[in-house]
Amino acid sequence: MTETFSIRSIGLIGAGVIGAGWAARFALAGHDVRLYDPDPETGRKVAAVLDNARRAQTRMLGALLPREGTVHIATSLADAVADADFIQESLPEIETLKIRVLGEIEAAARPDAVIASSTSGLLPSRLQAAMAHPGRFVVGHPFNPVYLLPLVEICGGDATTAQTKALATALYTACGMQPLQVRVEIDGFIADRLLEALWREALWLVNDGVATTAEIDDAIRYGAGLRWSFMGTFLTYRLAGGEAGMRHFLAQFGPALKLPWTKLVACELTDELTDRVAQQSDDQAAGIGLRAYEQKRDDCLVDVMTALRANDFAAGATLGAYADRLAAQAAAAAGPVSAGPVSVIDGAPVLLATRVDAGWIDYNGHMTEWAYLKVFGDTTDVLLAQIGAGADYVAGGHSFYTVESHLRHLGQARLGEALRVTTQVLGADARRLHVFHTMTGGDGGVIATAEHMLVHVDAAAERAAPMLPAVADAVAALAAAQAGLARPDAAGRSIGLPARQA
Amino acid sequence: MTETFSIRSIGLIGAGVIGAGWAARFALAGHDVRLYDPDPETGRKVAAVLDNARRAQTRMLGALLPREGTVHIATSLADAVADADFIQESLPEIETLKIRVLGEIEAAARPDAVIASSTSGLLPSRLQAAMAHPGRFVVGHPFNPVYLLPLVEICGGDATTAQTKALATALYTACGMQPLQVRVEIDGFIADRLLEALWREALWLVNDGVATTAEIDDAIRYGAGLRWSFMGTFLTYRLAGGEAGMRHFLAQFGPALKLPWTKLVACELTDELTDRVAQQSDDQAAGIGLRAYEQKRDDCLVDVMTALRANDFAAGATLGAYADRLAAQAAAAAGPVSAGPVSVIDGAPVLLATRVDAGWIDYNGHMTEWAYLKVFGDTTDVLLAQIGAGADYVAGGHSFYTVESHLRHLGQARLGEALRVTTQVLGADARRLHVFHTMTGGDGGVIATAEHMLVHVDAAAERAAPMLPAVADAVAALAAAQAGLARPDAAGRSIGLPARQA
Repeated sequence: MTETFSIRSIGLIGAGVIGAGWAARFALAGHDVRLYDPDPETGRKVAAVLDNARRAQTRMLGALLPREGTVHIATSLADAVADADFIQESLPEIETLKIRVLGEIEAAARPDAVIASSTSGLLPSRLQAAMAHPGRFVVGHPFNPVYLLPLVEICGGDATTAQTKALATALYTACGMQPLQVRVEIDGFIADRLLEALWREALWLVNDGVATTAEIDDAIRYGAGLRWSFMGTFLTYRLAGGEAGMRHFLAQFGPALKLPWTKLVACELTDELTDRVAQQSDDQAAGIGLRAYEQKRDDCLVDVMTALRANDFAAGATLGAYADRLAAQAAAAAGPVSAGPVSVIDGAPVLLATRVDAGWIDYNGHMTEWAYLKVFGDTTDVLLAQIGAGADYVAGGHSFYTVESHLRHLGQARLGEALRVTTQVLGADARRLHVFHTMTGGDGGVIATAEHMLVHVDAAAERAAPMLPAVADAVAALAAAQAGLARPDAAGRSIGLPARQA
Repeated sequence: MTETFSIRSIGLIGAGVIGAGWAARFALAGHDVRLYDPDPETGRKVAAVLDNARRAQTRMLGALLPREGTVHIATSLADAVADADFIQESLPEIETLKIRVLGEIEAAARPDAVIASSTSGLLPSRLQAAMAHPGRFVVGHPFNPVYLLPLVEICGGDATTAQTKALATALYTACGMQPLQVRVEIDGFIADRLLEALWREALWLVNDGVATTAEIDDAIRYGAGLRWSFMGTFLTYRLAGGEAGMRHFLAQFGPALKLPWTKLVACELTDELTDRVAQQSDDQAAGIGLRAYEQKRDDCLVDVMTALRANDFAAGATLGAYADRLAAQAAAAAGPVSAGPVSVIDGAPVLLATRVDAGWIDYNGHMTEWAYLKVFGDTTDVLLAQIGAGADYVAGGHSFYTVESHLRHLGQARLGEALRVTTQVLGADARRLHVFHTMTGGDGGVIATAEHMLVHVDAAAERAAPMLPAVADAVAALAAAQAGLARPDAAGRSIGLPARQA
């Protein structure tokens, strides 16, 4: 059995919403994938999902994203799985189909490859029963969109080895996901039993004409759904119990279990109900197309997870841990200073490349003031990481503080516009670092500049202190390398009206 | 019957988690409330909820919050409702108790007061059946925490008048909530039928030892819960159907309705199950107390809704509309320039007072660079609104753009610290406005300054243009009023190392 870190190539079978989502999740985490689906439209559909995923993950993780893996559309099932270290099956939820294709996968794959199934709720013991090497089979059940939602349920069957579960868990975790171990094998696992219960009641409400699909969605998203994005049902109800907690909540709302508040039977999905749900769903969508809604969904998911990251809670903690690992990997791969810049403009290296985020737009429709300073500040952070003054250095009690900044706005940036920031070191002494950033927009024109004076500090004492020798050396090397660059005209400039008015 | 805008005083009966939440929601929206609960601890408990609510709403809406209403702990039911225009009952979910107390309320209240019930799912036709004036009774079912979650279900009984429903809807909307009209009277209304279905299945999973309360919560919050914070079940599944939409989703997952993925019966809440849930909930809480968790919940809710506000979607659109209304009310009440400053420091008016938000903290534990510029930018916006160049002016195609900024950092700001920003106009001409902001921290010391040059533009042409006469006059009046202030030493300063190094 391969070790986690040796997983290089991944084979994917099935390229529906889930399979294509896996392709995007793995590729954006740096893995090469080979994907097979008999649908002749597979290439186009996967490209569309990958575009969405790249856009969303870039908004979320920006320059931290690793070099993207390749996505190869395989010509056959064997072409997809023959050389794979890890295989993920995302076929329709038909047990006989899955069992048959698992046999085909085993026939074509290496005997040590792990084979995972995306099934929403079929039992792994049944799916693996006919396999030659059932120990390497495990369920890894993800949620749509797979490239953003962290949850993946891990469930083994009777024959699944602990090693298989550990390897799948490690791979998913390394891709920024949050594995949940389903300890008891049960139809629907944990999440889909809960979702299915809610979904069955929702269908009844539509069936009985109590509410429309839009009204039911509103009943969730303006209320409990907001809580569910970071707390589940039990912690929420614990807090609803007030000072007396969960026991009080159960005493108070336990009697509601006896009330006729759910149908407690499954709804018959008649043609008439199907028509009604489909029609109401069309009305609810109000003519907004799939791609537009997917981007809206992804924007909201990215912003919600980013908001939770600031709280270091729930999916935000998962995202933060993933970002930290990516940053550490990038730092380890790059090493100090020696790593060449992405590119160079007028002799100065491009330290940051990003796009204008929707959250940075002001009421004029332009990138707002503070967002410029955020991008310039992020650029300063890249520079500090390059001179060996990144997260580890800060953790050691040393840091650079910005004491003075001078920004000039020479143009506008619009939503989605590509920004690049170059950095020139204007000077330095034992305690100070004087830098000049230049931001160019999509057309290559300069839209803003920032001049900063940074002071090196002993963070515990909160006072200026000399840089540690390695950092001082890196600063000196960088300053020497840039000594030939022309000093920007705007450096050292001050603000004022012409003399007659000021 | 009173009109919405004439609702001045609100009577609240019951001060549990929901009743106290209503007190906070109404008071923070500017209404005076009188609240009665026989619990002798009522005053302390309500104060704790109000503290949480004030903290959360201040983080979310800041200076936009209206003057807070008063919360009076009444000495009797009659004392709470006698003069109320609107009465909200939040008693335990016991039908006979509610019917009895509704009778007491009617006996003490004005005949034209609207009486709303917070019931989670009891039928309004039954609750109102014995009332003398049943037309004024309506269900307004909120969700915990009432002071943050926007959803409120409006459900009338057979006797409820349309006017009563309209008045309750208008009041809740004016307080920043999102009313959902429950058109068909049904046990559990809409939201709690869905929540109850999920909750029943969750209890079964604990009862059968499949998963713990923490695992079940994780199955929600890392997956579907993130989607549910802005899309409900149906829109989510429409997107899961891919290009073929909802009809394809129903065809693909309809068969799962036949699978044993939910218990389809109600769980018996035995003593043993109660013990197990309570114990697991204690384990899950890991010793973190109620207040700490409530603040974490509120921080996350505020940040999630703020993130959705940037997308103008779901609860974020509700929040944005509320903020816009509050801003319009504040502007209408204040008028241009004439409104005195909140206070004055060293002769310059304080234009902005805020607290350091959790999202503004960097890896050093201090307020991050861009957040200073955000606060200074917000201060500039207040100044512009004062001189008549606010949202209406911008909508008319006129605007000020910042072309140059100079920031100095003289101290640190920490999480929650109170910040005040004063503004001095240093100069102006027909097209330019030169301002100097000074930020003081909690101890009154200066922690940062910002000097800005703004240029007045014709936004459509994207070029400098003279200010409109009213704005130019307001600028001139402000500059004249501040002519006696000393020019800040830091004005006109430039950045540079001492000559020998630069």
